[in-house]
Formats: sequence, C-alpha cells, structure tokens
Amino acid sequence: MQLFFLGTGAGVPAKARNVSSLVLKLLDELNEMWLFDCGEATQHQILKTSLKPRKISRIFITHMHGDHIFGLPGLLSSRSFQGGDTPVTIYGPKGIKAFIHATLSYSKTHLSYPLEIVELNPEGGVIQLPKNWQVKYLPLNHGILSFGYRIIEPDKEGELLVDKLASYKIPNGPIFGQLKRGEQVRLADGTVLDGKDYIGQSQNGRVVTILGDTRPCDHLALLAKDADALVHECTYQAEETQLAYNHFHSTSLQAAQVALSGNVKTLYLNHISARYLGSDAKALEAEARSIFPNSHLVYDLNEFDINYRE
Amino acid sequence: MQLFFLGTGAGVPAKARNVSSLVLKLLDELNEMWLFDCGEATQHQILKTSLKPRKISRIFITHMHGDHIFGLPGLLSSRSFQGGDTPVTIYGPKGIKAFIHATLSYSKTHLSYPLEIVELNPEGGVIQLPKNWQVKYLPLNHGILSFGYRIIEPDKEGELLVDKLASYKIPNGPIFGQLKRGEQVRLADGTVLDGKDYIGQSQNGRVVTILGDTRPCDHLALLAKDADALVHECTYQAEETQLAYNHFHSTSLQAAQVALSGNVKTLYLNHISARYLGSDAKALEAEARSIFPNSHLVYDLNEFDINYRE
Repeated sequence: MQLFFLGTGAGVPAKARNVSSLVLKLLDELNEMWLFDCGEATQHQILKTSLKPRKISRIFITHMHGDHIFGLPGLLSSRSFQGGDTPVTIYGPKGIKAFIHATLSYSKTHLSYPLEIVELNPEGGVIQLPKNWQVKYLPLNHGILSFGYRIIEPDKEGELLVDKLASYKIPNGPIFGQLKRGEQVRLADGTVLDGKDYIGQSQNGRVVTILGDTRPCDHLALLAKDADALVHECTYQAEETQLAYNHFHSTSLQAAQVALSGNVKTLYLNHISARYLGSDAKALEAEARSIFPNSHLVYDLNEFDINYRE
Repeated sequence: MQLFFLGTGAGVPAKARNVSSLVLKLLDELNEMWLFDCGEATQHQILKTSLKPRKISRIFITHMHGDHIFGLPGLLSSRSFQGGDTPVTIYGPKGIKAFIHATLSYSKTHLSYPLEIVELNPEGGVIQLPKNWQVKYLPLNHGILSFGYRIIEPDKEGELLVDKLASYKIPNGPIFGQLKRGEQVRLADGTVLDGKDYIGQSQNGRVVTILGDTRPCDHLALLAKDADALVHECTYQAEETQLAYNHFHSTSLQAAQVALSGNVKTLYLNHISARYLGSDAKALEAEARSIFPNSHLVYDLNEFDINYRE
C-alpha cells in the first residue's frame, strides 16, 4: 500500500504543483488503484509515472470545486481510448453524476468499460467493499459539501503455522480446519493439539485518512483517529489563520493538531497554496513538526509506503 | 501576428504532444489573443510560455470532441482566479454553451469577467468583429459538426504621404482630406495636386485558415483559398488513407493537396497521431513537401510569424 501524490497544489495549476489528485496504490492487496480527486491534467501527471490508468478501479471525489474534478472527463476518456475494460466506480457528492454525464455526453464520449457513479449521503456513511475493505466518510466544513474519507483495511487473522505442525503428519482434511478455528484436536495417536498454539499473530489492518478541503471541524477527529496515514490539506501557514478561516481552509498547525490529537502515525501536508515556494513551503512543514514531528509536506510525484504499525 | 501552437497531438495527451490548442497572437494588431480549441491542460501549456491568459479575448472551438474542449472549464476558471476582468467570447458548435454552463455550474465556478457564448450556424457564416476583422466559417466532414475558420485581416488603405507634400506648405484643414480621398486639389498659388500621386501603397490583409478535424471535403478549398497560413490536421501518413477515412481524418498528402490547390503560402501540419514520433513525424512532413514544399509539421510550443505577402 502506497500513497502516490499526483497534484499537491491549491486552486489553480502552477509550474511547481498541479491541482489535486492522489493515488492510493493497493496493487499487492487488491491489484487495484484508487484515485482521490482528479484535477485538470491528472492524466498528464500519470504520464510522468509508471501508473496504469486501467488499474484505477475506484475514484473518490472529495468535493465539486474545479481543481478537484476538471480532470475527470479526460481521464475517463483516455482510460477508454487506451483499452481499459474493467469497471470503474466513482464516489462523490451530489452533482458528480450530472457533471460526468454532461461532460461525456456533450463531447460524444463513449466509454469502453462500465462506469458506476455513486452520490454519497451528505451526512456521511460507510462504503462496504469486496474483501471486507471499508471506506467511512463524513462531511467536513468547506462552504460546499466536502468529504473526508477513512479507508480501512480488514484485520488479518493469524494464519495456521503449517510448518510447526509438520512433525505430526496430519492428513489433509478437517483437522486443519479445526486447528485454524482455534479448537482442540485429538490425533489418531492420542496427541492433543490446541489450535491456539499453532496460529500466527493477527495483524490490524491499516487505516488511511484522506481529507477534502476543510476548516477545522469535529468530524476530523472521527476520521483521523489512530490512522496510519493522514492526508490533510495545508493551504496556509499558521499566521494566516484568519485567511484560512475566511476561505474555508486549514493551516499547517491546524493540520498538525488533528494528527496529534488523533494519535496518527504519519501526517502528509497536502494542497499547498502556490504562494509557498521553496523555503516557504519548508517553513509550513516546520510549523507542523513543531507540534507533530512526523509531518511531511508533500510534492507532486512523491510516493510513500504505508507500513503496518509495529 | 503569430501562430503559437500549444497542443499538436490527436485524441489523447502524450508526453511529446498535448491535445489540441493554438493561439493566434494579435497583440500588435488588436492587443488580443484568440484561442482555437482548448484541450485538457491547455492552461498548463500556457504556464510554459509568456502568454497571458487575460489577453485571450476570443475562443473558437472547432468541434466538441473531448481533446478539443476539456481544457475550457479550467482555463476560464483560472483566468478569473488570476484577476482577468475583460470579456471573453466563445464561438463553437451547438452544445458548447450547455457544456460550459454545466461544467462551471456543477463546480460552483463564478467568473470575474463577462462571458458570451455564441453557437454558430451549422451551415456556416461570417463573424463580423471590431476594426473590420472577419472570421468566416464552414462545416467540414468529421462525423460530428466540425468547423474550419478563415480569419481575415482588413486590407490597409494606403496612407497620405505627408512628407512628400511638405514643400507645398499646405495649411491644416480640408485639403489633406481631399488628397487622401484621391481627389484633385488646386492650391492658393495655382498648383494642382492629384491625391492619387500622394497615397502610399495599400496592403492586403493577411488570411489565416485554421481547420478542425476533417476528411477531405469541398469546403476546405473555400476556406483555404489564397491563405497566408493554413493550419490543417494531419492525423495520418499517406499510406493510411483508408484508416484516415474511417476515422474522419486526413493524411499528410491530403493536407498538402489543399494547400497546393488553394495557392496557400505556408502549410502547418497539426493534430499528429501519437504513433508518429521522431523520424516518423519528419516523414509525414516529407510526404507533404513532396507536393507542397512550404509545409511545416508543428510541435508543441512552436511559434511562427505570419508575414504579409510580398
């Protein structure tokens, strides 16, 4: 599982940062990639990488501002043009369905794959996905409806330690199932084995929280709690708190505060205003680190592994 | 007057060529720039140049395929975000108005400048513009309505050669007007001057023809006749004539034939399929030059002066 940032800027594209989009790579887990937001030229950013558009199975839109959606029609068209044939599901606020249908229909675009568009409950909810993956979502505070997404990998049960059982020469059959369920079993020679002794350690699934544009608000804590990775907008530096408030955005310190209170493992500062270049951008990161040391200000085409907690 | 090519590819963006857009720079003539088509990431291409989006006063759309229009919402939004306040008029086929209104309204985009959208007569017509500029347009043959535009600079009348009249010490007043109209005038000392002898040479306005995607068709000759610059699509090489026909496109040779028959001054081969890279693209140019020597295959960010004919 990796986070791959395609566009990390705010509002309008700039030379240094494109508008919003990031990929959650789940190739080892699901052989899929999930896209979060799709600003204009997201497909152009993908051209600079080894990412394959046909692997994008789900697209989550946080909100309907142009810098988060104007790349959708082109990405969907090109995925088709390039022979993508597996289904895509798009999740987003009300309006996303009409936007996509309008752009594809006025441009006479016919897709080569099934496209499903799901308009989410504005009060929040849970998207149940195959293999027990879940995405919880809640509305944030951005003037227009803006969602935060909490992606929850299923916990892994411990596996049966077959090697440790080898000396017992257990025949293939129901005994393995009983042991795996943690039951006691008596073998033909009278040996009693306790399944609990032969099951490896279980592993808690990882949690990745990806937020749309927002002011500080209560739902952030619910979405971010104990996340392994938190992607939080950071449009302004700390001293621009009033400006951030006026424009329904957050500062570096506000993002760091969410990470700190939520016992987050790693904070990714995203959606950086074009006013912060070079050392000014590094200053935003330093502000966040002053209260949450494991903060990373991200750049276009950065990739990060999301590891399990120890 | 210059042609500045922003995107010279076909269908989908590629590393070497972006999707369609070009600028007709009329800074010396009108202090304006006119954009022709606006594929996705046209504003990103502009970021690589010194072109100012606020100078774009008119946008002409040839047809509604996504690779010619998906950059419009972003370009219009960013022009607003960056403080553009002068009006923009967009011309295009039926559907362009609904497309723009839908994309701006679903994304809650409010523009800081007046936007007028003109849906053109599908049978062709003439757009009369300030200072006697004209744009004639006709439908081409592309499966969906696709326009070709013929931009006509007004002829310049010869100017009164004031220096040549200096020795006559003509008082300020109506005599200059009479001479300028080519009339005969008798001065106070009895000298007779013929205005025709004191008027400089007139200059024919330049003609630039910019075509949308098309198969060969009769209207091409009408649009291209005697043009100083012809921008013609060239999606395929000559030996792919059948493929070009099937996809409603043209080959290098077909483009060159239009330039030759029309007594065009310079041919610009545009809208190049991504299959032609490097020497393959040069081969397309060579094919066109075999019958029309003044052919130029264009690349993204190429700029060409459009000079008056000798």
